[in-house]
Amino acid sequence: MSTPILSQPLEPTVAIVGVGLIGGSLAAALKQRGIAKRVIGVGRNRLRLADAKAAGLIDEFSTDLTQAARESQLVVVCTPVDRIVADVRQAAAAMPAGSLITDAGSVKGVICEELADLPAAYIGSHPLAGSEKQGFEHASATLFDQRLCVITPTKNSPPAQLQRLHAFGQAVGMQTCERSPAEHDAILAVTSHLPHAVAAALASVLAPELRRFAASGFRDTTRIAAGDPELWTAIFQQNSAALSNAIAALEARLGALKTALQQADSTALKKWLAQAKTNRDALA
Amino acid sequence: MSTPILSQPLEPTVAIVGVGLIGGSLAAALKQRGIAKRVIGVGRNRLRLADAKAAGLIDEFSTDLTQAARESQLVVVCTPVDRIVADVRQAAAAMPAGSLITDAGSVKGVICEELADLPAAYIGSHPLAGSEKQGFEHASATLFDQRLCVITPTKNSPPAQLQRLHAFGQAVGMQTCERSPAEHDAILAVTSHLPHAVAAALASVLAPELRRFAASGFRDTTRIAAGDPELWTAIFQQNSAALSNAIAALEARLGALKTALQQADSTALKKWLAQAKTNRDALA
Repeated sequence: MSTPILSQPLEPTVAIVGVGLIGGSLAAALKQRGIAKRVIGVGRNRLRLADAKAAGLIDEFSTDLTQAARESQLVVVCTPVDRIVADVRQAAAAMPAGSLITDAGSVKGVICEELADLPAAYIGSHPLAGSEKQGFEHASATLFDQRLCVITPTKNSPPAQLQRLHAFGQAVGMQTCERSPAEHDAILAVTSHLPHAVAAALASVLAPELRRFAASGFRDTTRIAAGDPELWTAIFQQNSAALSNAIAALEARLGALKTALQQADSTALKKWLAQAKTNRDALA
Repeated sequence: MSTPILSQPLEPTVAIVGVGLIGGSLAAALKQRGIAKRVIGVGRNRLRLADAKAAGLIDEFSTDLTQAARESQLVVVCTPVDRIVADVRQAAAAMPAGSLITDAGSVKGVICEELADLPAAYIGSHPLAGSEKQGFEHASATLFDQRLCVITPTKNSPPAQLQRLHAFGQAVGMQTCERSPAEHDAILAVTSHLPHAVAAALASVLAPELRRFAASGFRDTTRIAAGDPELWTAIFQQNSAALSNAIAALEARLGALKTALQQADSTALKKWLAQAKTNRDALA
């Protein structure tokens, strides 16, 4: 894909809080596409930040979010979901009026509710891209290319700030859409959190002595179970109810399969499998 | 990987019954490695067989299994599991004493039991390689490289024939091991049939309007659900009891997850996820 380079930076200085896979990839895209003139990486570990700078992902780094936020027009919080609220609050306290803060959290309901008192400064978003890998070493400027970014405004989000966030996401190479935080969470429970739960459950069922018999099908189906347990504990907890519903829907499908197996009903089995294939093939 | 070329063909003429992804890949490996001097593709569709020959996968083709078997030292039956028994019987009726027949079926218990009266002619095997794709167009001479081949002898399998089958699998590039048909089926229920069931259940849960929100995690976790429903109906039916047990084990894991979610027990959640990650990481 060709990468459009902007003649004018959209957001002269952008601070990225949390320079891991997501934050590092975003930083790389901002620089490669000329979206920001200056990208400040913010984190807690000075050595890791220095390495990210040496890797060319960020222009500067700071362990002081307040200071970095003060110098930035836009702050993108890419920390784990259970740290986003505190990071957004700290940035908001330092930034002048008219600045914008967003995040990249995989759950939006709890975060957007807790930050409802900052409608002008914060609007949530979630770029639907990622990997089971961690760390800026796996970052890629093209991670977000043609991916979907779900923006989750509330009824108090100022239209100009919302428009600005769409423009930013699109400049990064994403399609953008809007959903309420609750809608986002119900959708992601099915498209992201349930697959993680299922992949993890499947990985857990494999006894060590069966590992050598696991071929590509097992490996693909469980790949995402290698994700960071800490990150996913926070995601699961923040989307507990919707995830439980999604698990129940999956259990109902497995229940139908067990019934067809018990009854040796080949017509029902084939129909069950054919519906799954139709759904999967539609993803292309 | 370097491909050792045999100075003498191990099995001068091999008939491969069913020239699809598996049969076509095996044919390609036999020719590339010099394992057979002559590979006869056997199937029902003359046009497809002619295309497989034109693609260089087979030397000759026939729609007459009896005739092809008569001219072969080894027959490998790569048809769907519900056709293997009939194909093996037809080949066995035509072949001289000392010939060997094996198959590539994903389930072994039913097939090996039904063929128990042919211990000298037939020994079951299952190369653990495959794809959700179908047809010889996706065949690859390296599909079996370094994969595991599970050979499922019975107590009446002649040692010389068993040894011959090990040598054949190893010449194709596989590691070989032995399990009883029942052991094989219990193992594959967990490592292959359960992942397929889970991937299919997950694909089914995705409503059409949510498709655009499905990112790489969902796609990877459901990839194998694109497999042929007809093939998998037969596999599920032949391994019904072991698959039901495997589903129950998965449901127990999901039940533990739901309990931890309901109790907002972050310690239990993290432990649940960490165990899955440990298991997945061990697959490398």
